[in-house]
Amino acid sequence: MKKLINAPATVLAESLDGFAAAHADIVTLGPERKFVRRAALTPGKVALVSGGGSGHEPLHAGFVGFGMLDAACPGQVFTSPTPDQMIAAAEAVDGGAGILFIVKNYEGDVMNFDMAAEMAGRDIVKIVTDDDVAVETSTYSTGRRGVAGTLIVEKIVGAAAEAGTGLADLAALGRRVNGQTRSMGVALTSCTVPAAGTPTFTLGEDEMEMGVGIHGEPGRRRVKLAPADAIADEMVAAIAGDIGGTGDAILLVNGFGGTPSMELYVMFNAARARLERRGIKVTRALVGNYVTSLEMAGCSLTVTLLDGEIARLWDAPVQTAALRWAM
Amino acid sequence: MKKLINAPATVLAESLDGFAAAHADIVTLGPERKFVRRAALTPGKVALVSGGGSGHEPLHAGFVGFGMLDAACPGQVFTSPTPDQMIAAAEAVDGGAGILFIVKNYEGDVMNFDMAAEMAGRDIVKIVTDDDVAVETSTYSTGRRGVAGTLIVEKIVGAAAEAGTGLADLAALGRRVNGQTRSMGVALTSCTVPAAGTPTFTLGEDEMEMGVGIHGEPGRRRVKLAPADAIADEMVAAIAGDIGGTGDAILLVNGFGGTPSMELYVMFNAARARLERRGIKVTRALVGNYVTSLEMAGCSLTVTLLDGEIARLWDAPVQTAALRWAM
Repeated sequence: MKKLINAPATVLAESLDGFAAAHADIVTLGPERKFVRRAALTPGKVALVSGGGSGHEPLHAGFVGFGMLDAACPGQVFTSPTPDQMIAAAEAVDGGAGILFIVKNYEGDVMNFDMAAEMAGRDIVKIVTDDDVAVETSTYSTGRRGVAGTLIVEKIVGAAAEAGTGLADLAALGRRVNGQTRSMGVALTSCTVPAAGTPTFTLGEDEMEMGVGIHGEPGRRRVKLAPADAIADEMVAAIAGDIGGTGDAILLVNGFGGTPSMELYVMFNAARARLERRGIKVTRALVGNYVTSLEMAGCSLTVTLLDGEIARLWDAPVQTAALRWAM
Repeated sequence: MKKLINAPATVLAESLDGFAAAHADIVTLGPERKFVRRAALTPGKVALVSGGGSGHEPLHAGFVGFGMLDAACPGQVFTSPTPDQMIAAAEAVDGGAGILFIVKNYEGDVMNFDMAAEMAGRDIVKIVTDDDVAVETSTYSTGRRGVAGTLIVEKIVGAAAEAGTGLADLAALGRRVNGQTRSMGVALTSCTVPAAGTPTFTLGEDEMEMGVGIHGEPGRRRVKLAPADAIADEMVAAIAGDIGGTGDAILLVNGFGGTPSMELYVMFNAARARLERRGIKVTRALVGNYVTSLEMAGCSLTVTLLDGEIARLWDAPVQTAALRWAM
């Protein structure tokens, strides 16, 4: 295992300390590193809390800040955070208007966020993202997995929360965005969890995992490495065939951590052309490492169908460590 | 070679097409893909033009936009762009106030930008970045190499150009920022140039290259893999021992393309503490993949000493594909 770390046992704590120090203008690290929260909270606003296993950075802590999340709970690598982390985060950011939990559809995450919502004694609503069309159920999920589409839900709901939307409407909006979002991924290599020390899975020199999950869990099938265009053919067909609509869309080409920017833009170029042939016009784009699997090579495509409201909320200002723009 | 590409011969063209389509609000691709320029130019402003071999993305095209570059010329992977690219870029962005070439210190780049400056028949001044303290001369450079500090020069000079500073003063400012900037890198793995198809160099399973260049060229020495703290010790000692000053500083922890975000923040945490013990206080931070070597695992540290003017210019708004913030 070749990693820039001191020890597997301390990597999460040290990276959180580094993250909080680097972005002290945006975030504050909670006691015992249970959560990352905004440095400046807005009373009277619905608070958005997410979280999940670490190793997917910048998801979720990189999306804490104005226009997006209020807090994120980092679990150990590829391990759900605990209910006490979520309860502490909810307590820290509760602005009196309720709390929305945004949860990727993995059994551990859903269970722990449910338990936290019940135990916290606060006004909490939970929404679950399940945008991955690759498989219907998987190693760690009943039903589809929640993957990179989660950041699109967080961005859009975050903008609405900033504008004063109430808890029930935010939950409905989040579910609507999730319903208009589809993703699929492909891996060319595995990743190595620091505490494990060896790759999560193995792929032959000429193989790829089509439909891979963000923990390296199996997808649809293991096949021979194919050109970018052929990969885009299959992924776009799966996404467009399932999304149930056409029109303007966001296209997110998300690197899993070990793929050069150049390749992500090759994939963007291929996917965009294929989507447009199917009547899905890419009017918003995001290309980069946003929902990673440590140093895995590969990428996912995510498409969200837009309407006027969703486009406006996507375009609204955001100021987080990993995503920032102004009108 | 496992890459998300169609063919080595088309990867650059397809990635540039994807880049231009994804960021059409910010950039326009020049004829024959000779350069990437701002979509909206500002007449009367000094134009900033940079460029270099591809494979270092987002450098340089990702830094084209308001507050930073006016154009960037992408060479083939790890290959200098040609003088005719630079001449075409200069012609496209010349706003009548002169042109500043910002060039990383590699022999091919320096030679071609010199030739272009001579042939273009325009008011052009060139500045050269050489921030890498690892080696005094190297495979492709006479004198120190220009590495990740280049983006800091581009950002600060870009902000001054936006504010109306003239050509001679911008060149002086750029040289001053370069003079207050030092970098050093470490590689844990090689990268593979698509046209070559095999790794540029090989490292044993327990080895790293200390002081590596951004093309995988040799650094100071090949040593056993060490903990993050020990790596930071050596890099910070080299940087702080050479920079010739203390006080407030920018710390850029730059991933080479294959290193997880988590590890970059571990390195930030380690480097920041060591700099502060030496009287260098990190008041500005940037952590991520900014000057890459395709999918190489490893990172570089860059420190720029600040003064009031440089800090103000660093903080000024910037809107590019890869770097964006507002006041």
